Amino acid sequence: MSKAIQDYYPDNYSHCYGCGSQNTQGHQLKSYWVGEHAIAHFPPKDYQTGGVVDKVYGGLIASLIDCHGIATAIAQAYILENRSFESLPHIRFVTGGLQVAYIKPTPIEHVLELKSHVIQEVGRKVVVDVVLSSNGEVCAEGRVTSIRVDP
Amino acid sequence: MSKAIQDYYPDNYSHCYGCGSQNTQGHQLKSYWVGEHAIAHFPPKDYQTGGVVDKVYGGLIASLIDCHGIATAIAQAYILENRSFESLPHIRFVTGGLQVAYIKPTPIEHVLELKSHVIQEVGRKVVVDVVLSSNGEVCAEGRVTSIRVDP
Repeated sequence: MSKAIQDYYPDNYSHCYGCGSQNTQGHQLKSYWVGEHAIAHFPPKDYQTGGVVDKVYGGLIASLIDCHGIATAIAQAYILENRSFESLPHIRFVTGGLQVAYIKPTPIEHVLELKSHVIQEVGRKVVVDVVLSSNGEVCAEGRVTSIRVDP
Repeated sequence: MSKAIQDYYPDNYSHCYGCGSQNTQGHQLKSYWVGEHAIAHFPPKDYQTGGVVDKVYGGLIASLIDCHGIATAIAQAYILENRSFESLPHIRFVTGGLQVAYIKPTPIEHVLELKSHVIQEVGRKVVVDVVLSSNGEVCAEGRVTSIRVDP
């Protein structure tokens, strides 16, 4: 797929600092649906550091996991309804809960990779697990509890 | 107390994008110890939005909870050891886990307030609960599992 999941969001819901196409000062994370899961890559900027200069800020990791998890929930919802991502009405989810386990310090010099998949769906609630890796090593694991809201 | 907890961190550990005094491009969150708990205030910038333009980005909320929780764990550790915040060796914690429950959308026009207290200490692990409010309303609740590391 050549177009990111976030780039299908309607413009008035695309102001997210983490992944909104309309937020020119934000991270502009782009997540892609590839078969059963979603994937994203993010090159951390040299100032997005944790306490020390060579590690990634944990808050950035949490932020990327959040955005990627929501994109995953949205993508899977379209697929389960056998709809294309541009079909109307737009499917929208918000974050109800976020959990992050920091497995090891994340080096700042590599591109971060996020992989995710839906692990549970109950009514309007969709739970997504996200694994964040750097240079092939898992550095953090996240769980996003997303809630479907009316368009 | 006129000096923030973060401003006692040694310079080489003060590069955190969320709260490091040496990170001029970061949020520079400042947490203050007031009796049994820590408090911080943060005015969100107009571009730190969630999907819509009038709400705060959830990733920012997670980030502030993380930094504020770590500062709380550090402050309480000094106090339990009956030491001043500038005494050596420095006490240092890192984030092992982060949980955030988003209670309601957080308006962007008000200063955010974070209040926290330690709820559990087991060996090197200190668990801190953080409540984030806007204009007197609780918008998010967080739990930071912090791990004490050698200085």
